[in-house]
Amino acid sequence: MTLNGDAKLPEAATPEGRVNGITKDTNGAPTAATNDFTTTNGSPSPPAYQSHPLGPLSRGEIAQSSGLIRAYWPAGTECHFKVITLLEPAKAQLIPYLAAERAGQSPVDIDRRAFVVYYFKGTHNLHEAVVNLTQNKVESNVKLGPFIHANGDGEELVAVEKALLAHPDVQAEIAKLKLPDGAEVVADPWIYGSDGVKDGKFYDDKRVMQCFLYMRDPQNSSEADSCHYAFPLPISPVVDPATLELIRIDIMPTGLDEKVKAVQPWQPVPPSEYIPEAQPQLRTDLKPLRVVQPEGASFAVENFSEMGKLLRWQKWNFKVGFNQREGMVLYDVHYDNKPLFYRLSLSDMSIPYADPRHPFHRKAAFDLGDAGAGIMANNLQLGCDCLGSIYYISGVLSGSDGQPVDMPNVICVHEQDAGIGWKHTNYRTNRAVVVRQRELVLQTILTVSNYEYILSFIFNTAGDVTYEARATGILSTQPLDLDLTTTPHPYGTVVHPGVLAGFHQHFFSLRIDPMIAGHGNSIICDEAVPLPRDAKLNPHGVGFTVKHTEIDTSGGYDLDASRNRVYRILNPAVRNPVNGAAVGYKVMVPPMQTILADTDSFHYKRAEFADRSIYVTKYAEGELYAGGLYTNQSRGGTGVRSWADRKDTLRAGDPVMWVQFGINHIPRVEDFPVMPVETLRVMLRPVNFFDKNPALDVPPSTQAVNCSVALNRDEEVAGKMQGLSVGGVNGKLAECCGTHGG
Amino acid sequence: MTLNGDAKLPEAATPEGRVNGITKDTNGAPTAATNDFTTTNGSPSPPAYQSHPLGPLSRGEIAQSSGLIRAYWPAGTECHFKVITLLEPAKAQLIPYLAAERAGQSPVDIDRRAFVVYYFKGTHNLHEAVVNLTQNKVESNVKLGPFIHANGDGEELVAVEKALLAHPDVQAEIAKLKLPDGAEVVADPWIYGSDGVKDGKFYDDKRVMQCFLYMRDPQNSSEADSCHYAFPLPISPVVDPATLELIRIDIMPTGLDEKVKAVQPWQPVPPSEYIPEAQPQLRTDLKPLRVVQPEGASFAVENFSEMGKLLRWQKWNFKVGFNQREGMVLYDVHYDNKPLFYRLSLSDMSIPYADPRHPFHRKAAFDLGDAGAGIMANNLQLGCDCLGSIYYISGVLSGSDGQPVDMPNVICVHEQDAGIGWKHTNYRTNRAVVVRQRELVLQTILTVSNYEYILSFIFNTAGDVTYEARATGILSTQPLDLDLTTTPHPYGTVVHPGVLAGFHQHFFSLRIDPMIAGHGNSIICDEAVPLPRDAKLNPHGVGFTVKHTEIDTSGGYDLDASRNRVYRILNPAVRNPVNGAAVGYKVMVPPMQTILADTDSFHYKRAEFADRSIYVTKYAEGELYAGGLYTNQSRGGTGVRSWADRKDTLRAGDPVMWVQFGINHIPRVEDFPVMPVETLRVMLRPVNFFDKNPALDVPPSTQAVNCSVALNRDEEVAGKMQGLSVGGVNGKLAECCGTHGG
Repeated sequence: MTLNGDAKLPEAATPEGRVNGITKDTNGAPTAATNDFTTTNGSPSPPAYQSHPLGPLSRGEIAQSSGLIRAYWPAGTECHFKVITLLEPAKAQLIPYLAAERAGQSPVDIDRRAFVVYYFKGTHNLHEAVVNLTQNKVESNVKLGPFIHANGDGEELVAVEKALLAHPDVQAEIAKLKLPDGAEVVADPWIYGSDGVKDGKFYDDKRVMQCFLYMRDPQNSSEADSCHYAFPLPISPVVDPATLELIRIDIMPTGLDEKVKAVQPWQPVPPSEYIPEAQPQLRTDLKPLRVVQPEGASFAVENFSEMGKLLRWQKWNFKVGFNQREGMVLYDVHYDNKPLFYRLSLSDMSIPYADPRHPFHRKAAFDLGDAGAGIMANNLQLGCDCLGSIYYISGVLSGSDGQPVDMPNVICVHEQDAGIGWKHTNYRTNRAVVVRQRELVLQTILTVSNYEYILSFIFNTAGDVTYEARATGILSTQPLDLDLTTTPHPYGTVVHPGVLAGFHQHFFSLRIDPMIAGHGNSIICDEAVPLPRDAKLNPHGVGFTVKHTEIDTSGGYDLDASRNRVYRILNPAVRNPVNGAAVGYKVMVPPMQTILADTDSFHYKRAEFADRSIYVTKYAEGELYAGGLYTNQSRGGTGVRSWADRKDTLRAGDPVMWVQFGINHIPRVEDFPVMPVETLRVMLRPVNFFDKNPALDVPPSTQAVNCSVALNRDEEVAGKMQGLSVGGVNGKLAECCGTHGG
Repeated sequence: MTLNGDAKLPEAATPEGRVNGITKDTNGAPTAATNDFTTTNGSPSPPAYQSHPLGPLSRGEIAQSSGLIRAYWPAGTECHFKVITLLEPAKAQLIPYLAAERAGQSPVDIDRRAFVVYYFKGTHNLHEAVVNLTQNKVESNVKLGPFIHANGDGEELVAVEKALLAHPDVQAEIAKLKLPDGAEVVADPWIYGSDGVKDGKFYDDKRVMQCFLYMRDPQNSSEADSCHYAFPLPISPVVDPATLELIRIDIMPTGLDEKVKAVQPWQPVPPSEYIPEAQPQLRTDLKPLRVVQPEGASFAVENFSEMGKLLRWQKWNFKVGFNQREGMVLYDVHYDNKPLFYRLSLSDMSIPYADPRHPFHRKAAFDLGDAGAGIMANNLQLGCDCLGSIYYISGVLSGSDGQPVDMPNVICVHEQDAGIGWKHTNYRTNRAVVVRQRELVLQTILTVSNYEYILSFIFNTAGDVTYEARATGILSTQPLDLDLTTTPHPYGTVVHPGVLAGFHQHFFSLRIDPMIAGHGNSIICDEAVPLPRDAKLNPHGVGFTVKHTEIDTSGGYDLDASRNRVYRILNPAVRNPVNGAAVGYKVMVPPMQTILADTDSFHYKRAEFADRSIYVTKYAEGELYAGGLYTNQSRGGTGVRSWADRKDTLRAGDPVMWVQFGINHIPRVEDFPVMPVETLRVMLRPVNFFDKNPALDVPPSTQAVNCSVALNRDEEVAGKMQGLSVGGVNGKLAECCGTHGG
């Protein structure tokens, strides 16, 4: 590696002049290519669908992108690729394309472009480039300024861990612990965060990793899946992931205050394992429960591009993309051929910690921008992650060498029963009509070191879309003096002897780019307000009404349960056929405690979305990520708060809605060694969009279809206590598919 | 009917001297009977379990109760029984009983008592009595004062409808509508509510019913299940349900203001039907989805009394009762032999409406106290209301004649999969451990005229208990002038031409009588609070901590998401073995807009729980229902607000927690003619109660057990679009039970 990264720099710009300008360089002119989605021309070109502008990059396009970047530089230049991802076309180009596609016409092709972020290998020289895949050329390349850093990646994690454990200074500190013979020390490299402090010779303008050291159970060191988070060590090396240099070793405070002691010999504590074979006993009384769809699933999947999937289910149809950062992205969501959402994705995530002591004060992970919900996505396993009849969507992303990396089974698609969807019993006739609620779930799971997020879009038969986030995995732990185990700690919960799990917050930002009944949407805030007493109008003091306020300026907005405040996206140009109201969808958001770090803190400045439940911005190209394009060691100033602060006047068609929700995680002992899911849901629900209950035509729930099994027939005959048991499935199915019930 | 109700009145009391005194008359001395739960003595007495003090009244006990009441009065006295229900023993008696039972000892028997509410038939003379079933005698009988009214019942609904439709004055008003030939008018008698107004000759000290008139689709009058709520009529008779007298006829305002017009000829509007055969087309593409438990369910059920059920599932065990008012009640809830909850039930419900105009201003239903979640419970049908392997619990309640009424299948019990319960992937080894979350659901559904509530207790494998309420059914509609169909209405949403669905609020009150790790519980309020900047302690402004405040005085308390306020029930005497914290359960409550009716209104005064998310009272016998013992046309002054206002000093063991949650129902067109469920959940979740994740011993999710079906194998081979379909269940089961996945 000889190139220092400044050798050839054909284009350079400050980030300010660039971040929102990426797509301004895009050549919007239509090309002559005719390989559109709906026709084939018999030419030897790749399959027609490859040209779809929303298709995730194909294997070939990824290799083409990195090849073009490499060819852009002198031979022998080594690049460490961070992101090679689809650069989506500008909305102005894409809307007519999608409209033509839906109309069965031939859309005007749009050049395919890739967005590429890379370092010169072994350096801090970060570049971003736009590659025109259709024209096979690098359209722009920019060297990014200081304080802009790309995400970490898995290859670095492994290299950093290996390098630091081999470093004599780290080994010298570890030696002071006098660990048991055979102890296996492991290191979780963490994103460094920001504090703006020039700390001795180090200023955080370079990308570094703060590494947390742990030990596997020393009684069982050969078990590679021993939960090392039960053995946190007080030594925290800071490493440069580009050069693998050790920058310094932080020693952690392990008491109640900020004082740091010299490393002391380790004192034995028991392990806490999550792997099943380490449990004293597993439950033996949980009987199998299976979801069976004997006639197959109700959904259909097509490819709209080599990697893009079009899903159809119960009047819904939408395109599914998958990229390095957001993971699953939905485009062009329609119900019953009515447009609803142009683009839906989890835009960002921030997890700031409460512990104000060095080095914990910088802990604030942005798991999407600092790592990537796509690249960290689990390979989902049949019967483990997904129950029932499952369709798996796989992805292709890029490795640090710029070559495609297969990401198998990153999204699972399945149906589930969600209990009763609606019911009414006529008490005069005693006739009940019951309709169950069926849901279609698209689930993806990411692992970022210790932690897991299970993220789903859920569609139902009543026109609702739900975004669900389940937090699970293992708490990020830190060492605590053993004699403090039963002392309340100001910044965390003791979850195991010698193990503190710090208080932290989780913030999620869901980006909603709507097209309810078409483009031209507005956002309204509804509030229920009591009417004043009035001898004529409200003589008994019981009256209330609903007040509507249009969001006419970009900005941050709050929930307020005391006013039943609801944000509603509506299309003022399209009226409900029954009551003439503007058709709309409301956004049902769980309340959260906004970020507790103060407004001068870097936690606050960086998490540009963590201070308001709702942000509304005026649509602008390139504004996809609530915390800005580069979150790693970011300093703030770019992200949804900054965009909203433009105070743009909003007109119909402008607004993009950013919905923030979160968890204040005050750990419980029950969250260790692995935590039961903590679940949050945001629901998008039609309001005067349909002309009646959209689930009215779902066939009623009947025993003939559902084949449930009555358990208490035998018991009632016997008339006494007994354990319940039902025979083999086949016999019961034959029996239950008859006519009783329904 | 000659007896006027004052003929013989051996005991009388003002309600004030009585309401909390019912159990004070109870003879707490043990009897000599030995037919306890755990032994049998071979005597000809009924089965041993009949004496269990928490067993719902048996058929025999119901008949015995009404028989004793009838025998208490002169021969020929006719009673209209409203409630004959178990009078639960005082806590001071029951705690040692349950402790002995659990210890396998012979508990000291407690006399069985019934609480009986009845009218002298055809009169407004209301009595409540306590019957000692063990001693076969009436222990107390009280004639209740004015403004105390019993619940309505189904027999009255039918009689009132019949009487009013036959009344010439009502017929004369209906005639003015000039309805089409063959039109079928129906009347939904509603609880009257309160306004404290002396209206001409009528003052609401007598129990009356406000009846809402509708018509079935005149094009299809013979269809008894035609949705008459699509044809509301402006005529509202007020009827005395005791005498069936017509008191007056209210004519409704049908415009935007309070003005009332003379009844106009009806103008044709189309129907809106929910029955499946009336739909233009039902979906044909929703494939069957079945839940199969080939080895049976994982739970076991025993009788602990003739009608009481003891459930055991996944370390949980608890007793299930069922009564006229609350429906499903849980007692003595334990997990892994650790006590958690002494009693859990939905305590009350209030649904005040927004329309301030006469007669709508009194619409405020208390569906438990005014009707009864037990007596209105649906007979649940296999494969319709419940999917999978289902155990049904049946109840016995009383009819107006005092005889037992079988209530079959009022609770369904089943297991369900709730997605992933916890997961972690070790990125070094790529080994994932996934545990699914299994839930046990106890579901009951009540129909109160137009509306349905689906109410469930849900237990899971991680120690959580969730109370879920789903609101569905048909909106209570009122007529609107046809020319106002597309005009925004201040008090409701137009859901169909000529049909206004009024804004309203739903308030639920869940009563939690805790015994976390035993009796002696306290309640703490936790808040996350930012730390001030401090050069030493919080130099970067990121610190926060948790503040704990004990609830030491009875009162009403609020949620506050901005402080992450969480109420936690804990046992200060029992410490977590890991960290020494008091063991506890937190109560996760969805926020609500509290009641909008002003504090001088009867809506507010009557719904004594609708103004605060949390009430905490000092335990007192007889205080079970948040809106007081008698809600029908209640005037307030009795209920949880009044009890909390005693400002009792709370000590460990005193607090009872009342959790309020609700829906502000601003109807959507989508809510008609039947509404998709609106779902609310309250979760009770362990906090430092266990010594680790309680679901750690749940066996990992494996394909060998779950037998999921991969859908895209064939499609991936074909490499092109296709509809998905899976073959018959048997073949797939055989195939999938192999070794892949897991």
